[in-house]
Amino acid sequence: MIRVNEHYLKLKASYLFSDVARRVADFRKRHPEKEIISLGIGDVARALPPVCIEAFHKAVDEMGNDATFRGYGPEQGYSFLREAIARHDFQARNADISADEIFISDGSKCDTGNIQELFADDIVIAVPDPVYPVYVDTNVMAGRTGKFTRGRYRGLMYLDCTEKNGFVPTLPSRRADLIYLCFPNNPTGATATRQQLTAWVDYARREKSLILFDAAYAAYVRDPAVPLSIFEIEGANEVAVEFRSFSKTAGFTGTRCACTVVPKTCTAYDRKGGKHALHGLWHRRHATKFNGVSYPVQRAAEACYNGDGPRQIRELADYYMENAARIRNKMDAMGYTCTGGLNAPYVWVNTRTDSWKFFDFLLRKAGVVCTPGAGFGRCGEGYIRLTSFNRKNHVEKALRRIAQALG
Amino acid sequence: MIRVNEHYLKLKASYLFSDVARRVADFRKRHPEKEIISLGIGDVARALPPVCIEAFHKAVDEMGNDATFRGYGPEQGYSFLREAIARHDFQARNADISADEIFISDGSKCDTGNIQELFADDIVIAVPDPVYPVYVDTNVMAGRTGKFTRGRYRGLMYLDCTEKNGFVPTLPSRRADLIYLCFPNNPTGATATRQQLTAWVDYARREKSLILFDAAYAAYVRDPAVPLSIFEIEGANEVAVEFRSFSKTAGFTGTRCACTVVPKTCTAYDRKGGKHALHGLWHRRHATKFNGVSYPVQRAAEACYNGDGPRQIRELADYYMENAARIRNKMDAMGYTCTGGLNAPYVWVNTRTDSWKFFDFLLRKAGVVCTPGAGFGRCGEGYIRLTSFNRKNHVEKALRRIAQALG
Repeated sequence: MIRVNEHYLKLKASYLFSDVARRVADFRKRHPEKEIISLGIGDVARALPPVCIEAFHKAVDEMGNDATFRGYGPEQGYSFLREAIARHDFQARNADISADEIFISDGSKCDTGNIQELFADDIVIAVPDPVYPVYVDTNVMAGRTGKFTRGRYRGLMYLDCTEKNGFVPTLPSRRADLIYLCFPNNPTGATATRQQLTAWVDYARREKSLILFDAAYAAYVRDPAVPLSIFEIEGANEVAVEFRSFSKTAGFTGTRCACTVVPKTCTAYDRKGGKHALHGLWHRRHATKFNGVSYPVQRAAEACYNGDGPRQIRELADYYMENAARIRNKMDAMGYTCTGGLNAPYVWVNTRTDSWKFFDFLLRKAGVVCTPGAGFGRCGEGYIRLTSFNRKNHVEKALRRIAQALG
Repeated sequence: MIRVNEHYLKLKASYLFSDVARRVADFRKRHPEKEIISLGIGDVARALPPVCIEAFHKAVDEMGNDATFRGYGPEQGYSFLREAIARHDFQARNADISADEIFISDGSKCDTGNIQELFADDIVIAVPDPVYPVYVDTNVMAGRTGKFTRGRYRGLMYLDCTEKNGFVPTLPSRRADLIYLCFPNNPTGATATRQQLTAWVDYARREKSLILFDAAYAAYVRDPAVPLSIFEIEGANEVAVEFRSFSKTAGFTGTRCACTVVPKTCTAYDRKGGKHALHGLWHRRHATKFNGVSYPVQRAAEACYNGDGPRQIRELADYYMENAARIRNKMDAMGYTCTGGLNAPYVWVNTRTDSWKFFDFLLRKAGVVCTPGAGFGRCGEGYIRLTSFNRKNHVEKALRRIAQALG
């Protein structure tokens, strides 16, 4: 008899964004005349930069010609892309990362979801609260938690992120083996200082823990004092893995390209204390369960680094950051306490009320979709996440409607 | 302390195709003057069909324009592609599969590797021998096996495929819960008759087992009596999942598109005998750990089904099938017993000697790369796999050299 992985049955009935989508679809059905503006899911709204389109076309042409056609590429990605990333995103910031420590993938969601496979079942997992649901759900599926009760899975260590700690988790008093951190943060938009990250790296070195650092939103940092990569921190190469994505950097949400950085000096241990390089384990997983990213997509991603690429990318991010400022200023002005929006495309708004109620209220009264904070964890209750990923005129219209509905 | 998943440490040191690549690289270094022809790894050699290139470009243009840009698509794939697949690959052959039973992905390697996550740790896994290494390695990583000793992992049920059973495994006498089948087969090129597949489906219904049916090579079947899909078999929708790929069908190995078909009636069980639809579990996995296939790639795949697409695809497969016939005829003529090459792009040659030795001999004497059968399992010892995925003139030259080396 074929038996299921019963850990799947512990999962809450559905995924946050599916819940949101269903409520929106229901509303649309009941009110087909209402125009809905989404400041909900973190999806970009503007076209790929021209440099990317040009490189994309060129590579598609190569695929149409026997002489230049490319079949299977290296599972870890083409070196033209790995080298560009190493040089521009890391070495240029004095982070000691080489091309062969970079693994190209089709998304950070996949990578942050898959990496837990490399670790033992009975390690202590620490996740921030609020948190990107993928970190939690993939550990539930793998059997590293107990049941879901009162908003939390048993067996996980939740690191409370609140206004009190500026939404940057404080070091735990107990031992954590695997620690998920995301800065600039999804959903709160908070950033961590160099000092705060250094404290986490020191903790991980002391405890022989591993930090999984999600830097998908690095392109939105405007404050030069904020580190973009965990590898800007001394010693991080021994205790951290970093996730980067072109999704929010260059509008690749529908194009799919990302990478995971696993330094060769990053170590995990077996039961007897033997050391194992994570690089080799991730390489093995990648080679066994993945077949590389589409060649034309890798060329499109590479274009972000050449010629006019960096300027076009920056312009794209600036566009969204202007939206973020609009959202934050407006919500501030209406008396709501906000986090994020300064070095992140997300504004995290303290609604001082039940977040799903606030979600329903905004949808009904303003025709605006937000993401209810409670969907990100217990500490998200009372908050909503507004995203800047929309056209300027839509954001302005949404803010006018929100002001009207709340005023 | 961060501890590793020690099941990874049970894996044989490296992946078959990496071993082959390393030996070839070594040879190249020692003999830079020698021209090497690969009939080894199953990678296509010819450009994407013109219909695909055209659709690809058109979709890239859409991504370059704010008005037509697409961000995150549905994780399960766009309905334009799911519907085309359902209609042409299944309904047209009286297989009762609907679009919402199809999940688009970036590769069959990923899907066949990932699907085992849905099942309990202690089920009985049956794999053919010889076998595509991914089926085995992903179960090793998940802890469903013991150590690797004398060419096999303990705890797996190996289904011997030999000349005696025509490389189609006979039903096991013991219970198997999860059964991997691949027809047309990689690596042997064997196909299963309707009667043989019916016997497996009946077995699975009787035992409440699940068949994972890998049909990545369906496009190469020329005998109209050979089923292309397990879903052409009565009752299969209750007990089978099927994997399809555009890699070998339309030359997408470097472009990346595939799909997994999970009928809504396909069931697995919990410890108490409760029924669970696999469709919901796979949907949940897909939505949690995957973010959809690149939009332009999905458009390129869709083009296989429209206008001149089917003719162009067929022509591409025919080209390789002519190579397969050349290879088979030549090896036959030299007195080697061959399987495959008639309804599959692979020719499985009985070398009557150690297969890695034969590999080294062919590389050294003929400058031709094959895949040693032993890499696919104990029953593969004594065989090599030759693939038809190369340019006609290269195949002809390789065969001349092989004849010379062996003559």
